[in-house]
Amino acid sequence: MLTYNLEERGNVPLYEYLYRRIREDILSGALESGTRLPSKRGLAAHLQISVITVENAYAQLEAEGYLQTRPRQGFYVARIDRPPAPPAVPAPLPPEAAPQEWRLDLRRTQVDRFPASVWAKLTRQVLSEGGLLAPVPHQGLPALREAIARDLRDFKGMSASPEQIVVGAGAEYLYLLLAQFLGNRTRNAVFALEDPGYPKIRQVYGQWGAVWKPLPLDAEGVSLTALRESGADVLHISPAHHYPTGTVTTIARRQALLRWAEETGGVMIEDDYDSELRYSGRPIPTLQSIDANGRVIYINSFSQTISPSLRMAFMVLPRRLLERWRQELGFYACTVPALEQQVLARFLSGGWYEQHLARLRKEYRTRRAAVLEAFRTGPLADRAAILERDAGLHFLLRLDVQEDDEALRKRAEGMGVRLGFLSDYAARPSPAYAHTLVVNYAALDPALLDGAMELLAQALFPDR
Amino acid sequence: MLTYNLEERGNVPLYEYLYRRIREDILSGALESGTRLPSKRGLAAHLQISVITVENAYAQLEAEGYLQTRPRQGFYVARIDRPPAPPAVPAPLPPEAAPQEWRLDLRRTQVDRFPASVWAKLTRQVLSEGGLLAPVPHQGLPALREAIARDLRDFKGMSASPEQIVVGAGAEYLYLLLAQFLGNRTRNAVFALEDPGYPKIRQVYGQWGAVWKPLPLDAEGVSLTALRESGADVLHISPAHHYPTGTVTTIARRQALLRWAEETGGVMIEDDYDSELRYSGRPIPTLQSIDANGRVIYINSFSQTISPSLRMAFMVLPRRLLERWRQELGFYACTVPALEQQVLARFLSGGWYEQHLARLRKEYRTRRAAVLEAFRTGPLADRAAILERDAGLHFLLRLDVQEDDEALRKRAEGMGVRLGFLSDYAARPSPAYAHTLVVNYAALDPALLDGAMELLAQALFPDR
Repeated sequence: MLTYNLEERGNVPLYEYLYRRIREDILSGALESGTRLPSKRGLAAHLQISVITVENAYAQLEAEGYLQTRPRQGFYVARIDRPPAPPAVPAPLPPEAAPQEWRLDLRRTQVDRFPASVWAKLTRQVLSEGGLLAPVPHQGLPALREAIARDLRDFKGMSASPEQIVVGAGAEYLYLLLAQFLGNRTRNAVFALEDPGYPKIRQVYGQWGAVWKPLPLDAEGVSLTALRESGADVLHISPAHHYPTGTVTTIARRQALLRWAEETGGVMIEDDYDSELRYSGRPIPTLQSIDANGRVIYINSFSQTISPSLRMAFMVLPRRLLERWRQELGFYACTVPALEQQVLARFLSGGWYEQHLARLRKEYRTRRAAVLEAFRTGPLADRAAILERDAGLHFLLRLDVQEDDEALRKRAEGMGVRLGFLSDYAARPSPAYAHTLVVNYAALDPALLDGAMELLAQALFPDR
Repeated sequence: MLTYNLEERGNVPLYEYLYRRIREDILSGALESGTRLPSKRGLAAHLQISVITVENAYAQLEAEGYLQTRPRQGFYVARIDRPPAPPAVPAPLPPEAAPQEWRLDLRRTQVDRFPASVWAKLTRQVLSEGGLLAPVPHQGLPALREAIARDLRDFKGMSASPEQIVVGAGAEYLYLLLAQFLGNRTRNAVFALEDPGYPKIRQVYGQWGAVWKPLPLDAEGVSLTALRESGADVLHISPAHHYPTGTVTTIARRQALLRWAEETGGVMIEDDYDSELRYSGRPIPTLQSIDANGRVIYINSFSQTISPSLRMAFMVLPRRLLERWRQELGFYACTVPALEQQVLARFLSGGWYEQHLARLRKEYRTRRAAVLEAFRTGPLADRAAILERDAGLHFLLRLDVQEDDEALRKRAEGMGVRLGFLSDYAARPSPAYAHTLVVNYAALDPALLDGAMELLAQALFPDR
């Protein structure tokens, strides 16, 4: 008969202690497979515990498969392989990259003027109205899609119905959906991407397994010749303001790209990631708004203008592709919580978003002017040339240096300065990209510019 | 000289009206490419407007590429292809599937007892402490990952460090990441999936382009013979409680699966989607907790126990795969907003989650008993047999009918009753799956059971 000292159980419930001890004996082999266990009544009497305690222990062992019942015969130990032996030393835990504090961070692209109090107020409103658990349709909440469609119409002259909009947790997630939609493995589609360009776009398509080809840019936008030679099925571009070169695709090139799409049956992904921050004139019409034949998928995100911590992006599918989208990818649940969608819908409809953008433009126009002035007149004036367009949150700075970019980066990091180079964005290295800084001035406080310029000059030109 | 009637501009700003009219003339061909435009001064004098107005209009046209400047010569019309002709009739907008109201919905799997007021309170707390825009590391907020690790340890006996946890916007999103991680196209990995099984798992892997093979289940879990024959590299299973058969994988089968993984170098994805809702005894130890060699990736989500509108799931990567994960997929930004992560961290750490689960278990244990009783004694008693395990939010009901499942479904839908069948979950049709209802009783109100049973009986057996 099984005998266990139940006094040793500490504060573990009696049935669980019994379960554990029997399990140990089964796993160690002390109770061999096929062994018949004592009847519940018998074991209860032997251990001087209640039948229900034994019953619970046996039931748990049976549920986990340690015991098997044979009708009218009782409980038998099941056949269980020994677990594989664990390694002597557990695999080490690689440390996570800790966020670093920089004295000066020229890679920071996030703006920092978000009206968090309005957002918090709207969040409280939605909570108090019970909107926390609103069911979310696959393409996103109708109220949000309507607000986005209105915003696109009023501020970008785009015609998009809410049915064409798909909301998702960040632009990267939408890229991943589009990789599946446009690059389905059996079709082996080729994706043409701007080079230089935002590396995450290459990473998403590449990790997904797409064939992608880098296209160079000229002054008017992505090269048409290279596009035609690439045999691309899909072209992913940022015509409004290319990162990091700042190139704005001309209307002539846009028309030519639409013609290319029409002739080849190609699709364009228009990545409009920072078109909100033009500092003068009207916004340039989007490709989507001059596309009459359903060749353009438009993507934009609120990561740059609100916060990346919000995780919210959307795309506008052309009507032509909508039915197929729903058939092939419509099964994916929307990845953005109901709460955030409702708050953003109110933030847009209430006019707060446009107000916020207007303030941002004003603030960054001033900041931009101060930063450009500091580069033109400060300690870097005669060693660096500014290459810029009147848009976005960054510009390029061509340095008059011999050292390679890695040496510059390393020395700067040692001084607490984080640099990004045009060469970081290149898929194919080229001397044409060397010695060119990408200056994101979101992190350059106008009040502290003199110190920042001095620090940067020391990092770049220590022998000055 | 260009002549426009500026009186017709309505309330459009002067410069914009001028810009529009010139653009129209360029697009229509009235102004041919290569044409030199009048000087700013000349046009201003001619139209009797200020030079700055003309300057702004020209600048906008130039920024958009309609005009080109030649140094010291002025503005010229750029060469622009005519846009492709739009189709005569725009593509129609397919209607979105509207959510339907059912008198009885046996497919509804969502529980409805979420403590929204506690959640709202915690959300207000996080907002007032300024946590809205907290930067989120790629794997998720440390506070949340620590809370999840504690919960896994305290309630499931699992050992997982926060570094091993990856937070994502729903289980489907994590499947999609794992498809990339484990099924990288160049490696052509084979995914083995339970059949019958949750169709979205097949859809995600299939849409991504993976090779997947369906494995039948026996009483102990997924078939080992079929697994070995499949040549699988990855096995995706729900050992705690398989949907929809309810099968619990026995400890013997679990050990055998671990041995399979060890011998073949395979990886298992343990999809623990509803293990929180066992109604008796201890939770069965997870595969992850008996895996000594880093063969198991554990996934769980809060969609079922909290709400699908929250969009929150997580996985535990074995230490062995952590470094590779960070190298290959670490570039993806975390898809869950900072706010929800902080609220969930507090909901877990404050003990509310366990309290909520305990209440759910109690409520659903009672509901389950009432529903089972109603099926055993009500109008369906002699035409339907219950097949169930003591866990989860559903059971199977084998019907004594001749009609096929589609005919039953159709008649029921006509009566406002939504049915799900075991055959809906099968990758390969088989007569063995026919005539078996999947009864999700989340939507069965115990107070209204008599009416529900009567309605169901009418739908299934109208000639009774």
